[in-house]
Amino acid sequence: MERVKNFNAGPAALPRVVLERAHAEWFDFAGTGMSVLENSHRTKPYETMQADAAARIAALYRLPATHEVLFLQGGASTLFATLPLNALGGGRRARYLVTGTWGEKAAKEAKVVATMLGEPEPLVHSTRRSDGWAFSNVPAPGSIPIDANDAYVHLTTNETVDGVQFAQTGAAALPLAASPLVADMSSDFVSRPMDLGKFACVYAGAQKNAGPSGVTIVIVDKRWAEACRKDIPTIFQFRTAVEHRSLYNTPPTLGVYLVREVARWIDEQGGLVAMEAIADHKSKLVYDAIAKSSGFFTCPVEHDSRSRMNVVFRLPTAELEASFVRSAEEEGLVGLKGHRIVGGIRASLYNAVEETWVLDLVDFMARFQKRHGH
Amino acid sequence: MERVKNFNAGPAALPRVVLERAHAEWFDFAGTGMSVLENSHRTKPYETMQADAAARIAALYRLPATHEVLFLQGGASTLFATLPLNALGGGRRARYLVTGTWGEKAAKEAKVVATMLGEPEPLVHSTRRSDGWAFSNVPAPGSIPIDANDAYVHLTTNETVDGVQFAQTGAAALPLAASPLVADMSSDFVSRPMDLGKFACVYAGAQKNAGPSGVTIVIVDKRWAEACRKDIPTIFQFRTAVEHRSLYNTPPTLGVYLVREVARWIDEQGGLVAMEAIADHKSKLVYDAIAKSSGFFTCPVEHDSRSRMNVVFRLPTAELEASFVRSAEEEGLVGLKGHRIVGGIRASLYNAVEETWVLDLVDFMARFQKRHGH
Repeated sequence: MERVKNFNAGPAALPRVVLERAHAEWFDFAGTGMSVLENSHRTKPYETMQADAAARIAALYRLPATHEVLFLQGGASTLFATLPLNALGGGRRARYLVTGTWGEKAAKEAKVVATMLGEPEPLVHSTRRSDGWAFSNVPAPGSIPIDANDAYVHLTTNETVDGVQFAQTGAAALPLAASPLVADMSSDFVSRPMDLGKFACVYAGAQKNAGPSGVTIVIVDKRWAEACRKDIPTIFQFRTAVEHRSLYNTPPTLGVYLVREVARWIDEQGGLVAMEAIADHKSKLVYDAIAKSSGFFTCPVEHDSRSRMNVVFRLPTAELEASFVRSAEEEGLVGLKGHRIVGGIRASLYNAVEETWVLDLVDFMARFQKRHGH
Repeated sequence: MERVKNFNAGPAALPRVVLERAHAEWFDFAGTGMSVLENSHRTKPYETMQADAAARIAALYRLPATHEVLFLQGGASTLFATLPLNALGGGRRARYLVTGTWGEKAAKEAKVVATMLGEPEPLVHSTRRSDGWAFSNVPAPGSIPIDANDAYVHLTTNETVDGVQFAQTGAAALPLAASPLVADMSSDFVSRPMDLGKFACVYAGAQKNAGPSGVTIVIVDKRWAEACRKDIPTIFQFRTAVEHRSLYNTPPTLGVYLVREVARWIDEQGGLVAMEAIADHKSKLVYDAIAKSSGFFTCPVEHDSRSRMNVVFRLPTAELEASFVRSAEEEGLVGLKGHRIVGGIRASLYNAVEETWVLDLVDFMARFQKRHGH
């Protein structure tokens, strides 16, 4: 079977060379005479590798020494709960900027935790619309309240389902002045340079740009983590992972190893500056194809808020959308169906999605439109 | 590099044939044209595989239809927190039977959660000794209180650090009459037949007998899960995983795949009856070698409570123990150092540890003793 062109939203394509390297040392990791899977996490070869994985992520972001890279488990959905467990307290409210499906879930779980802890409910600022595509923009920078009494300000840098992303600058810029700032970066982690020193906490399921599912990368300001609650279970405290360098309990060893290999590959490609340029280029190919289609393809997201990771678009009818997905699959273009909540088409263009695949997609879009007489 | 003889306590050896099968279809899982790592968890090939993994675990145990096999994340240390979050309530106390290091941690976290929830602290019955080896036995069956008002009764079927294990019958038998009964089975899961229908909840990190680290297998009575608390975060509720068949959020896909392959391999070996016989045989080889050593090797655990998974033993001095570990490594026998909390030697003899490795270990033990003049 030929390698398919994989536009899955996550788990997603991994760089071919990463798969090849893992395959080559599958039976003998770092000269240990056993698979990386079979190495104890309490041995030098494993610990060295995990420390290297953390150091490589830190180096990609030029992370300040105040911050630590952690490898946890459970995905963003688990962080939706453990974040407020750590960071609510003293009667202060958290503030959630909701720009899509995942941010909405995060705010919902924060409310549950606030009630559990007897703390006030979070304040929620949502860009949800009452008609059409539910989320089509991030809030304008000036419209976001900055309040020194916030327990923290939470946002989702890229909304995977809705195709909405904060930008680095301009009309859709991240509100980097908010503090303490916390971001779910699951679907645009390691896709562009960013000053993570401005964040108290960043978290990301690895299964988009950074590795396989089963590893959650968390980057915390150690001073902030130390100030978090101590009356919650040990495993949930960010402090625990900081103190034990993510070895308090058994980490997902193969996952961490693959994250290390992906980080090495990103570095070889030119780092996050290169990743951002490539993501801009690939997403522009698809957005341009949409623009050139005279309304056959439409993107429901406002221009400035459009994601470079997950390009969402619609066709004139749901039947045409289903036919588009089916026909694309026949040509080896897979994973293009939109999330079940919103429908439509979604092309996820993470780091490992090759430019030639995107060119094939754009070519397919043009042929599909012609075939259907528009 | 030749394959080492791996006695790691976990992550541990995996069956060679499982590694080979995973290696063979690394680039093309189930004809999808991509690695299992790259498959979305929302596709038919992945969902079919995960359902098969759960069905195979259920078949190994002849699990009743009342119970469900779940694939979660975070290891036993996470369950130490999520179990009481689910199951405490109504002013009832949980009861913890502590027979080793892990049970002690579980009880400690349950206390934290009870305080968080405003529920009474758990009752703890511990076999910890004040001198010598901390834990050397499980409680006698008749000594365990049975109280219908218990929120649940928690025990650890096998204590990995201390080498203490509950037996199926006899003087060290599991208190199967306790209810609702909950067990941490991390280090003897799928190593022997057991009527899991008698348990409300069983949990196990996969990285001993069942697969790689990063997957936590949980088996729950669905009626019990449904009766658990609803006012805790969605991701922590066992109910959520039951309802979504462990697909509420992204599962650790490669880990689940490897668990499926290990379950298939166990079935090919003759199922859990065969695993138990092999474990009895392998551990008897080491215990007999200890018994024959005229006191050079000593096992600190009482006879009936000795683990078939983790055989712990001491040498006359800490220097000899260090020399034993070093010399064994030179012969390719790795992972024999006891847990840092207790010291000594530990040979973990999980399902994938081959009999020839154990024979080599026993042979090495005799030679080491002779060389040191005893």
